[in-house]
Amino acid sequence: MDLPSNIKIDHYLTAAECGPQQEITLSTFTQRVIDAATAHANILGVGYNRLMEHNSAWVLSRLSIDMKRFPSVAENYSFTTWVESVNRHFSERNMKICDESGAPIGYVRTIWVAIDITTRRPADLTPFIGNLKADTIECPIEKTPRLRPIVDKSFNIEHTFRYSDTDFNRHVNTTRYIESILNRWNIEFFDKYRISRFDINYIAEARCDEKVDISYFDVDDNIVDVEITREDTCCTRARITFAER
Amino acid sequence: MDLPSNIKIDHYLTAAECGPQQEITLSTFTQRVIDAATAHANILGVGYNRLMEHNSAWVLSRLSIDMKRFPSVAENYSFTTWVESVNRHFSERNMKICDESGAPIGYVRTIWVAIDITTRRPADLTPFIGNLKADTIECPIEKTPRLRPIVDKSFNIEHTFRYSDTDFNRHVNTTRYIESILNRWNIEFFDKYRISRFDINYIAEARCDEKVDISYFDVDDNIVDVEITREDTCCTRARITFAER
Repeated sequence: MDLPSNIKIDHYLTAAECGPQQEITLSTFTQRVIDAATAHANILGVGYNRLMEHNSAWVLSRLSIDMKRFPSVAENYSFTTWVESVNRHFSERNMKICDESGAPIGYVRTIWVAIDITTRRPADLTPFIGNLKADTIECPIEKTPRLRPIVDKSFNIEHTFRYSDTDFNRHVNTTRYIESILNRWNIEFFDKYRISRFDINYIAEARCDEKVDISYFDVDDNIVDVEITREDTCCTRARITFAER
Repeated sequence: MDLPSNIKIDHYLTAAECGPQQEITLSTFTQRVIDAATAHANILGVGYNRLMEHNSAWVLSRLSIDMKRFPSVAENYSFTTWVESVNRHFSERNMKICDESGAPIGYVRTIWVAIDITTRRPADLTPFIGNLKADTIECPIEKTPRLRPIVDKSFNIEHTFRYSDTDFNRHVNTTRYIESILNRWNIEFFDKYRISRFDINYIAEARCDEKVDISYFDVDDNIVDVEITREDTCCTRARITFAER
């Protein structure tokens, strides 16, 4: 069978999926990114069930979202996703987000690894490489940087993740790190500023009922670096690039 | 044109939509309920755009979820939804949730009102009644009770809703009340107990950065009543019925 090296998923943005700015929230957008990756992996025969045969599961390691604008309420939009490269350690998967007319409004880069669900250590992707044929669609945004420890704390929030923040793997859900990071700011701030780019490195998993520090370093007027740490372990590093609306 | 008095929506449950018990979370399930209502309303010509012409929007007022079991990871399931009744004040919409074989695994009852988005007061549904033709599919679960103030506090949590909890209407998202209520318990509790029924009355909207009390009264071994209040205003009342797994 000929496996499709890319798929296009059509979406309609409901009011229920929007935040106060009448756009898709970054968290729901990230969920759509994961959904698109999941859908294509299933079609390619490297979905949840296949990886479980190897006691493995996909884990999102890096993510960059770079948008001219985010979809707005009652708008049709689409995700096109493809694998850019794969090796035994990780797979690079990109996405193009288009408006109703088919014009790109932004791009996404992701890096996925597989972990052994018992040991939580990286698993070898070799059994799946044959299914992950690369496509050559252009993705004109920079690769996700490896983010460094923040050099200074401009702001700090103590936070405890709870039951409703936890996922299938009994750790904090990918999207909840993003939400907790954005909670430094209020509705009025996001009325003035939009996120033009968001980079995140998922490093170690945080757990339910565990206290973490969310630390912010304001790099310049537009860029904020963020780190979520529990005791001496860094769970996540992120970089937010803001633009005035 | 003949408008369908019910629609069936097929779903596949991805790992990303599951909580630690490998089932759909109550919050994501509630989102699917809202999605199904939205999809059918759009088909019937009484969706977001049509109500906005009247400066109105649908608001969920009451919700009951009564499940023999919730869908599990990698399972196909479906939502069938129909309007049971409509009058100028509110619309009763029900849902049947079926497994892959078409056997019901649970039911949902919802009550929707329209509000004027400027005054936030109830709007008249008369212009839309013609589109909301009732169906007679059986919904063999009790109607959502009007929940009374809790009589005593067994437990209390102080909580502040933040930016990421807010929705399109700039108030706290429907699903976030549910998540904050469930956060009294931890992963191990939900390993032992499942929610067999969940009732909620949405009364007044909570806002971003507003401190609320989440108060619990343990009615008996299986039933817990909950109230979310800010100062003297009750925002939400809920009743959770647990069953041992």
